[in-house]
Amino acid sequence: MSSQFVPQYPDQAPPMAWDAWGTEDRRTDLPAPVRDLLEQALGIDTTRERDLPEAEVRLTAGRLRAEHLEGLARVVGADHLAGDDRTRLRHAGGKSTLDLLRRRSRDEQDAPDAVLFPGSHDEVLAVLAYCSAEAIAVVPFGGGTSVVGGVDPVRGPFEAVVAVDLRRLTALTDLDPVSGLATLQAGATGPQAEQLLAAHGFSLGHFPQSYRHATLGGFAVTRSAGQASAGYGRFEDMVDHLVVATPRGTVRAGRAPASAAGPDLRRMFLGSEGTLGIVTAVGVRIRPVPATTEFRAWSFPDFATGAAALRVLAQTDALPTVLRLSDETETGMNLALHENIGGDAPGGCLAVTTVEGGEAHVRARAAEVAALLASSGGTDLGAAPARAWQHGRFDAPHLRDALLRVGALAETLETATTWSRLPALRSAVTDALVSDLTAQGTPPLVMCHISHTYPTGASLYFTVVCAQSEDPIAQWSQAKRAAGDAIVTAGGTITHHHAIGRDHLPWLDAEVGGLGLDLLGAVKHAIDPRGILNPGKLIG
Amino acid sequence: MSSQFVPQYPDQAPPMAWDAWGTEDRRTDLPAPVRDLLEQALGIDTTRERDLPEAEVRLTAGRLRAEHLEGLARVVGADHLAGDDRTRLRHAGGKSTLDLLRRRSRDEQDAPDAVLFPGSHDEVLAVLAYCSAEAIAVVPFGGGTSVVGGVDPVRGPFEAVVAVDLRRLTALTDLDPVSGLATLQAGATGPQAEQLLAAHGFSLGHFPQSYRHATLGGFAVTRSAGQASAGYGRFEDMVDHLVVATPRGTVRAGRAPASAAGPDLRRMFLGSEGTLGIVTAVGVRIRPVPATTEFRAWSFPDFATGAAALRVLAQTDALPTVLRLSDETETGMNLALHENIGGDAPGGCLAVTTVEGGEAHVRARAAEVAALLASSGGTDLGAAPARAWQHGRFDAPHLRDALLRVGALAETLETATTWSRLPALRSAVTDALVSDLTAQGTPPLVMCHISHTYPTGASLYFTVVCAQSEDPIAQWSQAKRAAGDAIVTAGGTITHHHAIGRDHLPWLDAEVGGLGLDLLGAVKHAIDPRGILNPGKLIG
Repeated sequence: MSSQFVPQYPDQAPPMAWDAWGTEDRRTDLPAPVRDLLEQALGIDTTRERDLPEAEVRLTAGRLRAEHLEGLARVVGADHLAGDDRTRLRHAGGKSTLDLLRRRSRDEQDAPDAVLFPGSHDEVLAVLAYCSAEAIAVVPFGGGTSVVGGVDPVRGPFEAVVAVDLRRLTALTDLDPVSGLATLQAGATGPQAEQLLAAHGFSLGHFPQSYRHATLGGFAVTRSAGQASAGYGRFEDMVDHLVVATPRGTVRAGRAPASAAGPDLRRMFLGSEGTLGIVTAVGVRIRPVPATTEFRAWSFPDFATGAAALRVLAQTDALPTVLRLSDETETGMNLALHENIGGDAPGGCLAVTTVEGGEAHVRARAAEVAALLASSGGTDLGAAPARAWQHGRFDAPHLRDALLRVGALAETLETATTWSRLPALRSAVTDALVSDLTAQGTPPLVMCHISHTYPTGASLYFTVVCAQSEDPIAQWSQAKRAAGDAIVTAGGTITHHHAIGRDHLPWLDAEVGGLGLDLLGAVKHAIDPRGILNPGKLIG
Repeated sequence: MSSQFVPQYPDQAPPMAWDAWGTEDRRTDLPAPVRDLLEQALGIDTTRERDLPEAEVRLTAGRLRAEHLEGLARVVGADHLAGDDRTRLRHAGGKSTLDLLRRRSRDEQDAPDAVLFPGSHDEVLAVLAYCSAEAIAVVPFGGGTSVVGGVDPVRGPFEAVVAVDLRRLTALTDLDPVSGLATLQAGATGPQAEQLLAAHGFSLGHFPQSYRHATLGGFAVTRSAGQASAGYGRFEDMVDHLVVATPRGTVRAGRAPASAAGPDLRRMFLGSEGTLGIVTAVGVRIRPVPATTEFRAWSFPDFATGAAALRVLAQTDALPTVLRLSDETETGMNLALHENIGGDAPGGCLAVTTVEGGEAHVRARAAEVAALLASSGGTDLGAAPARAWQHGRFDAPHLRDALLRVGALAETLETATTWSRLPALRSAVTDALVSDLTAQGTPPLVMCHISHTYPTGASLYFTVVCAQSEDPIAQWSQAKRAAGDAIVTAGGTITHHHAIGRDHLPWLDAEVGGLGLDLLGAVKHAIDPRGILNPGKLIG
């Protein structure tokens, strides 16, 4: 570690819109082929746009007592505490489809009573001590990109709830180029972290779809998985150490690249979703900015053949950096969007690979990957489709904004299981979504892809599009229940990388069992005895 | 999963000797060059052998009440409960040098009051329920190879202590060849697991030095790392799921290849050292028995150059299956033992690599490894030294038996840190051992190697040999304290793969902090409210 390292701060990130995934200065229009599809296949009248002017949004009145407002202002400074409706609305929840539908409703909406912007670890500690003493609920707030209700302003048994927004904590505070380790404050977003590291020739390599807005702390506490997980692992695998502010003080978890000194305490906080403390700094493994990237796309005759090919790569220990496989429906949609507008939907399944690194390594690995995919039934499509995927890879949630606006219901959900169970899990979830939404009178388009591959299995990521019914919140809630039940019955995990939040709570018992819940509760009680941290999510 | 799978049982493993690492039917003689070294360099008179006939060992009297003996016999069957001194002595502790010295002492020794051999998960559950209700301490006992006091028969606040030996739980109960997953009962030893899997063409690939005797459950609860960790990962990374019997019931942790459903509960039990429950079954990732193995050894001019070369492999994501680097002293000893008897000690540092797998993969990876090592200052020594290492790789503890017998003190200790801190850590530990033992009048030989390599750092494994003083237990205890303090001060972990047990407890606070200890204690209390499980180790 270079103890003389001077902290470096990134450029500001553009804020997300209050009613959309997109930023305030950007509005995505619906591509023509998608509009045609909605009209023709799903019977949606796309001419009527559903927008709600911000002035018409009604928030519940703030309930924080004056003495508490003053007390908290003393902790973080009056300039770094906000109780206005504009700020409260922008911390009223995450970015699931249900969130966005609720955000655009004319009903009165819940919001945190105030939003705090602490400027240091010690200020976060002091906020937690104050809120624990005064019995105020605290919602840790990073990028606000949760799609499972993870930042909902739940009061629990408390009179008031505040959001603690970490956007001032964005510095690169330590860099060890020899070991490939960097320490960043937890409020840095994906692009901010990459910008700070790039100045030294390094990259983190964590690119989930939420990359543009989500923060390192959020990645850690949700066990995020990025699009380069085949090469670089899940975020939890990149974490060297965590610094966590809790109501009982500071925890610093992680001391060595590997250890046998009891259970790995980092893993208690990775996935803790703000219920055990607020992560203020993350030590992460970094790597040199790749000297070169080889892009290559492949076509497989069907999903089963493609999945078997991905399995061969993972079990041979010859994974590329990015590896994903779309099913027939998603392949058709992708190609329609990118290059085949108006043409026939092509058959087969598209796989995308990239191999990043130094030139010799990329040459060796890309050759091994290509040989294995070719001998597993793949047809080489060259670089272009893989480059096209990379170019648009963070855009899907923007497309969802446009879909919701014209009256389509669009949402995603994800799971993972072993290779042997994968086909049955995919069928079960697809069938559950199709039959539930069809019974509701809104037959859906269900697409699926594998985006995270392991030696023993893979993730499945589903995208659902159909017409909104009269009550789209009830409509999707019911379909989601059917899908979640199908996942549990078919032996999948209820979430591969979106976390539990509020939305997945109904299935947590099936996932970890009663004793598992007790253990989580015991940890929670030990570190947050009053239970102020993120009530109603994950643990209690 | 193949639900029709019929459980398969392995051959019996030979039992370890009561007073040595070796088995009862095998006694290792001291090689002549080692005997010469002891005589000449360390001034040890190797003609006087220290042996204690088993008949002269004195154990403390068993303290289990008759009603409890009867009660436990009802749970596991009278044939599977032993209270005789022969059995008690073989469960009196692990296999550290201090253990072996104590075992050969004429002082009265502690031992468990009885040893139980349950035959099923349900029997283990019932034993724990009984002992919890009746306040009897329980020491889970796998292979008995702990070198940190992890299976010491500590009573804690209880009148009696029993050992629960899992040697009857050795079956392969499920095999999923497509996903590369197997479930084995936790009492299976390394060779038993490999034998069962080999019948289906698979291998686990976990080869720690304790491989011949240690069990899968022991690997899990100590966060074991095997000699093929570069290619196959640490044992904790191979674990798909764990079945754990606890005083409060059964926990089944792990549901998918990856998940974001809260903190990873497997990681609470991995490293829990028998303090939170008894692991009865382990689901593990398996791989096909390697079609081919390429052996290659390398010479580096010095340890720093060799370590930098290992770092390049790890940071390029081009690791072989086995990767180790001996320092100058260990290199000299190895060569003296294996091929250079009577010759001059050669200079430089020996590195050993193997690359295992299918032929195309081995060809590609071995070529990449060789190119990187050659361009990092390595000289190719060909296959022979790597084959010699592989041949003798489980023998070092047998050599220790012979050393102890002739009056040498021989022990190992290990740590890990980042690449940037590695040189300072190595010096600090070496200096601490040399100066402490020299001050005690017994100047040591200290050897070191790297056997586990990560992108951000590596392990350091030290072997110490010197003459025994009048009181070798006090002698080593003092030197170990000096080494442990040096590790903590230099920023290393107190243990990379040996676990905490009793011996590393003094440094646990420095490792995880006061709040970290509280969290572990909260989990312990939630699952073992009476505190019967393995008192005095790791937690409380």
